[in-house]
Amino acid sequence: MPSISTKGRQMPASPIRKLVPFAEAAKKRGTSVIHLNIGQPDIDTPQVALDAIRNLDRTVIEYSHSAGYESYRKGLADYYGQHDIHVTHEQIIITNGGSEALLFGMMACFEPGDELIIPEPYYANYNSFALAAGVKVIPVRSSISDGFALPPIAAFEALITPRTKGILICNPGNPTGTLYSKAELETLREIVLKHDLYLFADEVYREFCYDGAKHFSAMSLPGLEQNVVLVDSVSKRYSMCGARVGAFITRNAELYNTVLKFAQARLSPPTFGQIASEAALRTPQSYFDAVVAEYVQRRNILVDGLNTIPGVTCPKPKGAFYCVAELPIDDADTFCQWLLESFSHQGHTVMMAPCSGFYAEPATGKQQVRLAYVLEQPLLKLAVECLREALQQYPGTLRNAEATTAATR
Amino acid sequence: MPSISTKGRQMPASPIRKLVPFAEAAKKRGTSVIHLNIGQPDIDTPQVALDAIRNLDRTVIEYSHSAGYESYRKGLADYYGQHDIHVTHEQIIITNGGSEALLFGMMACFEPGDELIIPEPYYANYNSFALAAGVKVIPVRSSISDGFALPPIAAFEALITPRTKGILICNPGNPTGTLYSKAELETLREIVLKHDLYLFADEVYREFCYDGAKHFSAMSLPGLEQNVVLVDSVSKRYSMCGARVGAFITRNAELYNTVLKFAQARLSPPTFGQIASEAALRTPQSYFDAVVAEYVQRRNILVDGLNTIPGVTCPKPKGAFYCVAELPIDDADTFCQWLLESFSHQGHTVMMAPCSGFYAEPATGKQQVRLAYVLEQPLLKLAVECLREALQQYPGTLRNAEATTAATR
Repeated sequence: MPSISTKGRQMPASPIRKLVPFAEAAKKRGTSVIHLNIGQPDIDTPQVALDAIRNLDRTVIEYSHSAGYESYRKGLADYYGQHDIHVTHEQIIITNGGSEALLFGMMACFEPGDELIIPEPYYANYNSFALAAGVKVIPVRSSISDGFALPPIAAFEALITPRTKGILICNPGNPTGTLYSKAELETLREIVLKHDLYLFADEVYREFCYDGAKHFSAMSLPGLEQNVVLVDSVSKRYSMCGARVGAFITRNAELYNTVLKFAQARLSPPTFGQIASEAALRTPQSYFDAVVAEYVQRRNILVDGLNTIPGVTCPKPKGAFYCVAELPIDDADTFCQWLLESFSHQGHTVMMAPCSGFYAEPATGKQQVRLAYVLEQPLLKLAVECLREALQQYPGTLRNAEATTAATR
Repeated sequence: MPSISTKGRQMPASPIRKLVPFAEAAKKRGTSVIHLNIGQPDIDTPQVALDAIRNLDRTVIEYSHSAGYESYRKGLADYYGQHDIHVTHEQIIITNGGSEALLFGMMACFEPGDELIIPEPYYANYNSFALAAGVKVIPVRSSISDGFALPPIAAFEALITPRTKGILICNPGNPTGTLYSKAELETLREIVLKHDLYLFADEVYREFCYDGAKHFSAMSLPGLEQNVVLVDSVSKRYSMCGARVGAFITRNAELYNTVLKFAQARLSPPTFGQIASEAALRTPQSYFDAVVAEYVQRRNILVDGLNTIPGVTCPKPKGAFYCVAELPIDDADTFCQWLLESFSHQGHTVMMAPCSGFYAEPATGKQQVRLAYVLEQPLLKLAVECLREALQQYPGTLRNAEATTAATR
C-alpha cells in the first residue's frame, strides 16, 4: 500500500468540525444540539441574491473568466470604493471562497520554510493553508486580558528572522471578535515597511462592527501597494457561506499576475455563486443595519450571560460574530466532547469549538472555547443556561482557588 | 517590494487561456473568433439541473458537509454503480471541480520531489497542480502515429526510480481523445502493483465514448483498492463547467480521511453547484444519446476535414471531444497567435491551444495543436476552411519535402 504524504499526515483535522461525529451521536440520542461551533449564520441570504438564482436565464452553465466575471469584479470594485478601499476590477481575482484566496496568496508569496507571523489565537484553518504551502506559522500572542488587542510592536520585532516574509491578520477577528483600530494598523504598517513583508488582511467580517466602531482596512494604509493582500468573501456578508465566492485583491501587479496563473489552473470560480454575489451587491443598507442590530443583541445575550457564570471570562468583542471565553475547566477539548457525549440540560446541549486549534501550540488554548453567536436569541439564552449547568456537573471543572488562579493567568 | 515565490514564478500560464488577450483584440477589430481552444461545450445543461436551481427553496445558502451533501454523494454512488464503478458515498468527497480533487490528491499522496508518470501529451494543468504540490512530472511519450495509445509497459519500467510514487492517466484523454482499452488498463495495473504506486485516473469524459466503444474504469481493476484515485467532474458530463463540482474518490480509507482534512480546511464545496449536480443525476439517457451522436458528427466534420488539408495529420479519437493535429508549421505557438493577430478568412479566424503546454518539454509539441469540437457543425466546417486557408498564407508553413519530413517524425 503506497504511503500518505508527510503533509497529508500533518494536516490538522478541523477543530471546528472534528466534534461533528459526537454531535451526530447526541442528536441520534434525541438531544438537541445548539451549534455555536461554526460561523454558519441563520440570517437569511438577501432576497436579491436568491432572486437572481431563481431567475437564472442561461441554458449553458459555462466557465467564467479565471479571475471571475468582469461585470462582477467591476461591481465589487464599486462596493470596495464605498468602504474606502480603492481598487480596480483588474486588481481583483474571484476565488472559491476566502479559503482559496489564502491558499493562492501563500503559494505565490512564500517559499517553503518562510515564516508568517499571525496574532494568536487565529482562525484554525490558517494552519492548514500554511501547511499546504509549506509556510511556517509564527504566532505572536495576544491576551484575553486586554480583549485580544494587537500585540505591541516589540512583540513582532522579537519574532522577525531572515525567513520572516509576512504578517497575517484577521480584522475583525475570528475567533476573538477583536476589531483593530487605525492606530493598530499603522503599527503594522511600520513593521511591514521596515522588514519588506507581505501583509495579508482577512477582512471577511468587515460589515460586522458594533457599538459605533468603524472598520479600517489594511488596503487604506498608504505606501503599502506592493505589500498588502486583501482576502475577502461573501460568505458572512450576505449569509451565503455555500456560494463559495471570495476574492484575492492586491495592487501589486506582479503578484496579481502570479495568482492569476494559479486561478487559470483551476479554470473558473463558481458561476452560480458569482451570479448570486453580483446580485447581492444591490443588497439595501437596511439589510445590513438589521443584521448588525441583531448581532449586537445576540452578542450581548451571549457575552453578558457567560460573564455571569462563576469563573468564566469573556471579553465583549467589537466585531465579527465570535467570542472567546475562558472557562474554569481542565481541558476544553475534553469538555466540548463531554458536552456532546455525556451532558444534556432539559434535552439540550451546546457545541463549541475548543480553542486548542486556534493556537500554534494547542496547550495554550486549553481553557478557552470559541462561540459563534449566529443563532436566534432564545437559543443563545438557552446555551448560556446549558453552560452554567454543565460547569456545575463537569468532572473537570476547577473550583475556588484553582479556578481563580487559572482565570487570571 | 517583497519577492514572488519560486513556485509562483514557475507556475505556467495556461496554454488554453494565454492567447485570450489576442482573441479579445481580434474581436475588437471585428473578426469572429471560432473557439476551438477550450473544452467549453455549447450543449445545453440538462433541464432538470437548471430547474433545480430555478426552483431553489432555501432562504439561507449554507455550507454543506466538507465532503459534500450526503444525499448527493449517495446519488453519485448509484450513478457510478450504473457504470460498473462500485463505491459507497463514504468513499466520495465532493470537490471544487476535478481540479481541486487533483490538487488534494497530489498533496495527500506525494512528497515534494516524488515522481508522477503521465503519458504525454497530457492535460496542461496537471503541470500546475504538480508544481503546487511540489511533484515532479515524468512524461512517458505516446505517439500520434498510433493514435496516442498507452505506451508499452517497458516504456514505463524504464522511467521507474526510487522516487516514482504514481501514474496519472486521463481516460478518455484530454488533449488526445484517446480511449484506453481494458487491456491497456490491465497493463497499468501490473506496473502499479509491482511498484506499489498510486494510480490517478481522471475520467471526467467517461460518457463521451464513440463508435460503440465502452469505457473501462481504473476503479474496476481488481486488487487496486489501496492504489486507485478516481478524479471526476460534472463539468463536461452535464455541460455545466461553471458549476465547479467534481469528486475525489478512493477506496483507500486512510487516503480518504487525509483528503477530508484538506476538504475541511476549505469548509465546503459549492452549494448551488451541488444542488444542480444532484438534480442532474436524473438526466435521462436520451440526453446523453443525443449529445454523443452530436459529438460524433462534430468529430467527423473536424477530423475528416483536417485530414483533407495537405500536410495535416489528425488521428480520429474514440472519446472526449478533443483531437490533436500535427500541422506543417514551424511553431504552433507562433501560428496560433498569428491566426488571432494577422489572419482572417471571410471575417473569421480560429483559436486553438498550441500543444507546447501539453508536453513536459514544450518543444516536443511544437507542430501540434489541440482542437475542441465543442461548437455547432457549421462553425466546425468553417474552422476547417479557415485553417486550410491559413496554412496557405502563414509565413511559417513548411512546404513539400520539409513538411513531409516533419509530419513523419
